[in-house]
Amino acid sequence: MLKLKWFDIQKWGVEGKGWKDTERYFDRLPARAKKVVPEAVWNLSRSATGMAVLFETDAPAIHARWKLRNDQINEINFPAAGFSGLDLYTWLGNKWRWVAAGHLVRTPKHQQPIIEGMNPVKRKYILYLPLRNPVVKIEIGVPPGSNFKSIPPRKEKPIVYYGTSIVHGAFASHAGMVHSSILGRWLNNPVINLGFSGNGKMEKELAELIAELDAQIYVLDCLPNMGVDQVKERVENFVRILRKKRPKTPIVLVEDRPHTNSWIRPALLADHKRKWKAYNMIYQKLKKSGVKDLYYVKGKSLFGDDHEGSPDSSHPTDLGFMRQAELMYPLLRKLCRKG
Amino acid sequence: MLKLKWFDIQKWGVEGKGWKDTERYFDRLPARAKKVVPEAVWNLSRSATGMAVLFETDAPAIHARWKLRNDQINEINFPAAGFSGLDLYTWLGNKWRWVAAGHLVRTPKHQQPIIEGMNPVKRKYILYLPLRNPVVKIEIGVPPGSNFKSIPPRKEKPIVYYGTSIVHGAFASHAGMVHSSILGRWLNNPVINLGFSGNGKMEKELAELIAELDAQIYVLDCLPNMGVDQVKERVENFVRILRKKRPKTPIVLVEDRPHTNSWIRPALLADHKRKWKAYNMIYQKLKKSGVKDLYYVKGKSLFGDDHEGSPDSSHPTDLGFMRQAELMYPLLRKLCRKG
Repeated sequence: MLKLKWFDIQKWGVEGKGWKDTERYFDRLPARAKKVVPEAVWNLSRSATGMAVLFETDAPAIHARWKLRNDQINEINFPAAGFSGLDLYTWLGNKWRWVAAGHLVRTPKHQQPIIEGMNPVKRKYILYLPLRNPVVKIEIGVPPGSNFKSIPPRKEKPIVYYGTSIVHGAFASHAGMVHSSILGRWLNNPVINLGFSGNGKMEKELAELIAELDAQIYVLDCLPNMGVDQVKERVENFVRILRKKRPKTPIVLVEDRPHTNSWIRPALLADHKRKWKAYNMIYQKLKKSGVKDLYYVKGKSLFGDDHEGSPDSSHPTDLGFMRQAELMYPLLRKLCRKG
Repeated sequence: MLKLKWFDIQKWGVEGKGWKDTERYFDRLPARAKKVVPEAVWNLSRSATGMAVLFETDAPAIHARWKLRNDQINEINFPAAGFSGLDLYTWLGNKWRWVAAGHLVRTPKHQQPIIEGMNPVKRKYILYLPLRNPVVKIEIGVPPGSNFKSIPPRKEKPIVYYGTSIVHGAFASHAGMVHSSILGRWLNNPVINLGFSGNGKMEKELAELIAELDAQIYVLDCLPNMGVDQVKERVENFVRILRKKRPKTPIVLVEDRPHTNSWIRPALLADHKRKWKAYNMIYQKLKKSGVKDLYYVKGKSLFGDDHEGSPDSSHPTDLGFMRQAELMYPLLRKLCRKG
């Protein structure tokens, strides 16, 4: 095999990184957050969820070699291509179109051709990083003779998506299929993914950190991780902290999806309803008190209406992710200033 | 915990089993096929793919314990709930609705509550068996005091779905999400799944076996496993064998889905096109020669049109399975005599 030319993506930088002052390059929170946020949030912030790198090449094949921090490559119901894989799309005139996933990940040190057999035409690509397994290093390889040009992260203000394991990507089948990334492609806009599995709980420290980000839109999608008491205690304050620092940035409050079998589990459905009621009351209160540019999305149909969006009733498959993206799109399209 | 009452599903039998004279209960081909079909087909026929068991209970919780033949519980991109799990739906007036999957499979001998916390109302259920890991034994458990009634396999003629790894279920996130089973629910009709991973190749021996089944519809979906030469050599003969034995049963020829990245891989796309052309010519020839009740489905949009249906370009996620079901439904609805 010909010796490939390798390019380390850290050399020109990834998109979807909120802070530069991180302890490790692919962390999602700044080093100073370590002393501030709950330990679980800190640990979960170390996966490069939602990050992506842009480049241009006329290569007929694109390879990658990547090193991951953990031996665990997937979970029993969370596929390797999403958990530890790379995911490649190309810009086709007016939209991002899927090319291939680096899906054959079996060990934390891994190399594979992502795609081969293309016409050698100059194209712009975006490569998504693994959703869960923290990244040590990623290099892109092209055959000798091919041109390769790095593209720095885009300048548009990012959509900031703060949430739970769902935003963190479980159980996307490939890295680009988390709904925040689907929406980023459809809106052609950078996204910062702040999903913290099991720990999207709207602590005020997170509000203060997130308020540092000059976002195009804030999407707050934490309800699956919060109880009614936490909703009552935290949501208003969280929004007020954001609003104080960012007077005009649209803030979208998303209800939790009902578990796809809550229709047959009365106690669970009642739980959802109590949370929705408490959450909506806070939304109404904030609106009445004069908070502008605040939006509310009902959760009922986030995974669709046929109850087929999840294997464990809680975490979406690609079908559930696609449906969340479709439900969120019209509002985010309206709020996205480029539009 | 209360001692559960256990019911072995073999006692009243599963649906989606084409033959009674099998070597093991959960085999998909008769014992005599062992000497007739290719060894790979025989080995693959031993998973209970597509089989399902019906029952009625007013239990507030449904448990299961099941024993599988292989230690391998999933594949890196094929989730455990599909590969080794059970999947429960209930009949809700006019349709099957998802209840829960037995998804936490970590070892080949496994017990878990599939669902808890339901109102104790009498309901009819269908439980799908694992798509890939061969089954040794499955028992359903309900709390003492609950009523439980086995329901024998339905009498309607089955839809017989013959195909590849895709029909065999890769990469469905839970067992009921293979498209043949989705269609079985939408049509409320038994289905026999004859997907043989990598080995759906239309050998005449398979035609002779499949012709033994008094089907409502035959769906032939083998193209992803066949080359142009095999298409030319085998398809006509396969259909003629079926037609001779079953003069009036509708036969549906399905083209292969294009790999979701074949749009950017010219040689692969050309391959698809050559196969489609050869396949369609045989279809036209058979029609012209007077073969009736023969139908043809184009493969182009089987996974949808946004190229997002698969992590490896070949095997669908639930998103791809749902799209295949949606594309196939109108025709099968028309052909299904119950309608």
